[in-house]
Amino acid sequence: MVRINHLKLIKKLSAWLVYQSISVDLADKTARILVEGDLAGHPGHGAERITQIRSGFANQTIQTNGRHTVKKCSQTVTLIDAHYNLGYPVVEKAVHTAVDLAKQFGVGVCAVKNASHIGILGYYTNLASQHSCVCVILSSTSPAVVLPGGKEQLLGTNPISYAIPMASGPSYVADFSTSSVSRTALIEHMQSELCFDSAVGVDANGTPSRDPQQIAQGGLLPFGDLKGAHLSILFSILCGPLIGTVTNDFVKGTRSMEQSPNKGDFVLCFDVSSFTDISTFTRSVQSFSERIAASSERFRVPGAHTSETRKKNMRDGVVLSDKLRRFFEEEAISL
Amino acid sequence: MVRINHLKLIKKLSAWLVYQSISVDLADKTARILVEGDLAGHPGHGAERITQIRSGFANQTIQTNGRHTVKKCSQTVTLIDAHYNLGYPVVEKAVHTAVDLAKQFGVGVCAVKNASHIGILGYYTNLASQHSCVCVILSSTSPAVVLPGGKEQLLGTNPISYAIPMASGPSYVADFSTSSVSRTALIEHMQSELCFDSAVGVDANGTPSRDPQQIAQGGLLPFGDLKGAHLSILFSILCGPLIGTVTNDFVKGTRSMEQSPNKGDFVLCFDVSSFTDISTFTRSVQSFSERIAASSERFRVPGAHTSETRKKNMRDGVVLSDKLRRFFEEEAISL
Repeated sequence: MVRINHLKLIKKLSAWLVYQSISVDLADKTARILVEGDLAGHPGHGAERITQIRSGFANQTIQTNGRHTVKKCSQTVTLIDAHYNLGYPVVEKAVHTAVDLAKQFGVGVCAVKNASHIGILGYYTNLASQHSCVCVILSSTSPAVVLPGGKEQLLGTNPISYAIPMASGPSYVADFSTSSVSRTALIEHMQSELCFDSAVGVDANGTPSRDPQQIAQGGLLPFGDLKGAHLSILFSILCGPLIGTVTNDFVKGTRSMEQSPNKGDFVLCFDVSSFTDISTFTRSVQSFSERIAASSERFRVPGAHTSETRKKNMRDGVVLSDKLRRFFEEEAISL
Repeated sequence: MVRINHLKLIKKLSAWLVYQSISVDLADKTARILVEGDLAGHPGHGAERITQIRSGFANQTIQTNGRHTVKKCSQTVTLIDAHYNLGYPVVEKAVHTAVDLAKQFGVGVCAVKNASHIGILGYYTNLASQHSCVCVILSSTSPAVVLPGGKEQLLGTNPISYAIPMASGPSYVADFSTSSVSRTALIEHMQSELCFDSAVGVDANGTPSRDPQQIAQGGLLPFGDLKGAHLSILFSILCGPLIGTVTNDFVKGTRSMEQSPNKGDFVLCFDVSSFTDISTFTRSVQSFSERIAASSERFRVPGAHTSETRKKNMRDGVVLSDKLRRFFEEEAISL
């Protein structure tokens, strides 16, 4: 397993982005957040997404002008149109905006439409939690999920992340898709020709299936059957029509870069101090999470594990995937 | 099947509440919202809950003084302490408050702690949607749910409801527990000695089980395995420490009335017009929901069905359950 120092990786990615006409500031931010995926141990949402960005630049479905427009819709609500530019820096900005609004009013919303992929959501919610906010981020993605009993892909894998500040140590940061398994897991299973342990999707006829090739023809199922579908629908409305973009079945450009990304990312922050005493809150959550951790070996308190992985990867370097190694070869970037 | 006119039922319940020292105004509101459960076709969350209220009055764990205190925590956040009084009227007030805050600021939160049972959440979210808000309500309930892999009840059945205004006809109103099945379903299965179709809970040793008697000794599982648990934990934090009440494992008095109810109910409203054009929004959601409805026979667009049931029950009367009939007999109330 080839590893690479994360700072070196950031530098290489940033330099390539600058060469593609991205401003130094936006290139640095993008590279840094991309590598956060690798540091957290999720390379599928990390640096190898640079290949997707390259494809977007080539197809002109991702823009390089860095332009975005900010619209203050009401006192607590700000909407940003990313105009098909790189999503990472603009969503980071949205998090800072939502935190500022929450600090001022108690609750803050900043949503982004028409941004490209933004990497792992947990990076952003964790960021807000460092400012003593409970933060929830929802995203819509292009259709991949069928309703239970259906066979048309009408919903995305629509992920959710939330982060909760704790008294000491890392925040409680959960981050998961509303599909039974992620699209990344589906692709990995297709490549390795492995079936899933259970019927996580349906074939083209709507029949439940464990076979990734068949599921690619049909669709993934939502997690938790009808209840999961209800949640995914709520998330898709908040990330779609509410912020002035399309409904979930018309979302494009979140995986394949043949079309520009017209999805939404919805950042919601609650400033803890605007509700209650912050130290009572963080101690209470901490002790609850300790009881949770002690009660099940299967349940890992999220955030703590990522924090450990991150430390280890900062020390040992992040894994250089074959996909990323090929990218650097193709672009004639020495490592 | 004995049926009773819903207006007559409201009158009877209200009169009994007034006789128990509840003010006429609060008694009327409580009775009306209780019967909304029956009208919607969910008698387990309807009028028969009057027996639970009676038990709370008898144990003095539900107060009759109607006192509640309202604290404006920040511009968009209001917290209400119900001081162990009846939950129905106070949560209805919280919905109106959250709507008003949303109209003023874009987003509004009004949460309630220490309120007794509040019936079906969908009633309240639907109310907010009539004011052109997207409304989400979360509640914590006393422990009944174990973590996947665990055997201690640390989480409640923590329900969620959301409502979305539509262009015409009833709002899109979803309402469900974050447990695999509701506590009401567990009790019904225990009474009828029927096993569940799948392992919706665990026995006292943490072994998955379909047997309701064994699950009562162990606990229900969250819906959707670990992902459902993550959501339930988020909901429990928002309905617990964030609003200044206990963590989920210390919640009491939501089913058994031996202790006063110290749970939380969290009302979050987004005023659609503060985000985007309301008519574009409602038309877009309506057309999305029509595509959803057409794509699966198993998936029923929520709200529409309840609306039909409600109309039918207003015409034909609501079902008078044995439990409620016995209550009226015991209290010597003629029907």
